[in-house]
Amino acid sequence: MARMNAFYAQSGGVTAVINASACAVIETARKHKDKIGKVYAGRNGILGALTEDLIDTSKETAAAIAALRHTPGGAFGSARYKLKGLDDNKAQYERLIEVFRAHDIGYFFYNGGGDSMDTAHKVSQLGRRLGYPIACVGVPKTVDNDLAVTDNCPGFGSVAKYVAVSTLEAALDVESMAKTSTRVFVLEVMGRHAGWIAAAGGLAGEKKFDPPHAIIFPEVAFDEAKFLARVKEAVEGCGYCVVVVSEGARDKHGKFLSDAGSRDAFGHVQLGGVAPVVANLTKARLGYKYHWAVADYLQRSARHIASKVDVEQAYAVGKAAVEFALKGHNAIMPVIVRQSDRPYRWGIGMTELKHVANREKMMPRRYISRDGFGITAECRRYLEPLIRGEDYPPYQKGLPAYVRLKNTAVDKKLSAEFVL
Amino acid sequence: MARMNAFYAQSGGVTAVINASACAVIETARKHKDKIGKVYAGRNGILGALTEDLIDTSKETAAAIAALRHTPGGAFGSARYKLKGLDDNKAQYERLIEVFRAHDIGYFFYNGGGDSMDTAHKVSQLGRRLGYPIACVGVPKTVDNDLAVTDNCPGFGSVAKYVAVSTLEAALDVESMAKTSTRVFVLEVMGRHAGWIAAAGGLAGEKKFDPPHAIIFPEVAFDEAKFLARVKEAVEGCGYCVVVVSEGARDKHGKFLSDAGSRDAFGHVQLGGVAPVVANLTKARLGYKYHWAVADYLQRSARHIASKVDVEQAYAVGKAAVEFALKGHNAIMPVIVRQSDRPYRWGIGMTELKHVANREKMMPRRYISRDGFGITAECRRYLEPLIRGEDYPPYQKGLPAYVRLKNTAVDKKLSAEFVL
Repeated sequence: MARMNAFYAQSGGVTAVINASACAVIETARKHKDKIGKVYAGRNGILGALTEDLIDTSKETAAAIAALRHTPGGAFGSARYKLKGLDDNKAQYERLIEVFRAHDIGYFFYNGGGDSMDTAHKVSQLGRRLGYPIACVGVPKTVDNDLAVTDNCPGFGSVAKYVAVSTLEAALDVESMAKTSTRVFVLEVMGRHAGWIAAAGGLAGEKKFDPPHAIIFPEVAFDEAKFLARVKEAVEGCGYCVVVVSEGARDKHGKFLSDAGSRDAFGHVQLGGVAPVVANLTKARLGYKYHWAVADYLQRSARHIASKVDVEQAYAVGKAAVEFALKGHNAIMPVIVRQSDRPYRWGIGMTELKHVANREKMMPRRYISRDGFGITAECRRYLEPLIRGEDYPPYQKGLPAYVRLKNTAVDKKLSAEFVL
Repeated sequence: MARMNAFYAQSGGVTAVINASACAVIETARKHKDKIGKVYAGRNGILGALTEDLIDTSKETAAAIAALRHTPGGAFGSARYKLKGLDDNKAQYERLIEVFRAHDIGYFFYNGGGDSMDTAHKVSQLGRRLGYPIACVGVPKTVDNDLAVTDNCPGFGSVAKYVAVSTLEAALDVESMAKTSTRVFVLEVMGRHAGWIAAAGGLAGEKKFDPPHAIIFPEVAFDEAKFLARVKEAVEGCGYCVVVVSEGARDKHGKFLSDAGSRDAFGHVQLGGVAPVVANLTKARLGYKYHWAVADYLQRSARHIASKVDVEQAYAVGKAAVEFALKGHNAIMPVIVRQSDRPYRWGIGMTELKHVANREKMMPRRYISRDGFGITAECRRYLEPLIRGEDYPPYQKGLPAYVRLKNTAVDKKLSAEFVL
């Protein structure tokens, strides 16, 4: 293949380490200038490709690109934008090919989850059909850890570490206050469909009465009586109770616990947040004083407490994506392969995009303890290595020195505007 | 003074660094075995003194005590328990003296805020009156930064760093998503009376359109129209808006914004939380998609991101407390004295307990920008040094290696039980 430019885009919810993958893609491409000309990034992800709003990453210094490795968020902007099926909106795909053709783009690196892998897969198919073959390589990313085939997903290890550390720390706080003040603490974490992130809270303790004393998984229908019994047992057994609840917790009818239909002081409905609902329940039924926290974006942007393993894996999949593309692979995604648990060893493998496109990997039921409120030893063995190691960003004046790129626009070459 | 034992207790809400003060008290006492016998800690703070539930810290190894320096929460248990006035409940104070006498306690180190300094002050007065002179020395502690006389308060610097870092990180996340998803992010922080903690969020940015775009202080009555205009300006100016709101935010009638009177799915009233109220307001009036987070205990237990300056100051006040006591001082508290802003230089001074007892230091109005939504340059100059430096705990298997003490009970010597 002649020397071609590359296109890189971030997709969906960002993570603490998605920029480490971007860093790897760009740094690896720069090492292969004979084959890859420039790396163009999509401004706001795939939207940038559709609207021909490309960012010229060659305008960034090596130091700025290197700093992406320790910078959270999405450096070029991401997008929640799922392309429709090929039949429903072929124009979108054709537009992508048109933009790629106009900018001599021969490589498409798409950094995202299952939806994005589907898009990359379709672009690959259509390119071939339209006589513009393009190497489409996915770069796995999601805090939800729900991508198929890969043993785990870059982004998850860091949110898992954040949740485990925060659970441990808050538990020490509650424990010291419980005698005269707060008895129950509820931490709400992400994961609307799968309980991977909530499960990570379980790493904070291992023995009986270690926190967290109850995890509420989306996989297990919430049983109020059983939950209250669990809380009571903890408070009576060790003086306090720490609960980690997934935002996706549901009752037996499948209704989100957070779906409270409440009204605030301004008369608006539906504030959301399952933590206050669960906390309030323990107060109303058991009379315990409570506190609750909702980590929300803090958990997935907390680069300051990122897992070193996660950062290394995020970099490794970005690097492998470019190397695989240069070897002529197409419609594939690098995956993380676990070689052993203890000591933890991993390597990079490869899967076809069609195996990961639009698929969700749920947490196995055997990872949840029989009572439904904890994690099993097998789950712990799976999770533990993923939060290993610290990878601190540099600091300046007490704050992490995160990089802000110039994000210089590439001159447009197409006359037609594309309406999204 | 003959060799006497010391009593140390933690009081009120704990912090990421209150154990660093405990560490200093114990380590310093251990260096003066000629004058201080054992250091007894109150189990659950002052309750331990009232119920004669003392912990013998001499049973802990030097390594365990050293590890207190990097362990959050209150290692001996704290208490929200304010002793009444001397006239209202003299029995409580007399009981304290009785317990101190029974255990040859000649030093009383009380680690807390303004209320606790009042208690220490009264114990000092009463001891003298009852013919049992005891050196009462306060050790300043509060995340709220509201203690008088001292330039700042140990515990505050670390929560300030947590809030500034979290605001910066979440803002990078929101910024990358804003094009197609979340436009407004609201972070709720502590500070029911004073806006010190909320102000720390302001350190995340400095230039126009840097986050946070609005801080809602308890000191400034919430003006809905002005706030919405501010949010709109940010979203139109830079694409997104980050809001830091103090839990103590109030309307012009002094009513807490969080006092929503809402009902949840279980039919219980009052969930609390001002972040969802503010976020929902922007959605209802401006139509922006939002996310919100409530940091709650995470912010004050986040030892993993503690400020190095804060840890050093927490240690320094504990050390000074013992040294002052050994020099014969009584009814005093070590304070932090700022010698210069840039470079930041500080030292330890001393004040009498009567100057800090029951007093609250509010944030000066000149620290809040004229529009009411930001911090001034003077405020920044004050806050910036307090979040300087990192002081990471050691890690094991991906989690901070926080210490758990043995907390061995001291044999009781009094026959009478004291009913709280």
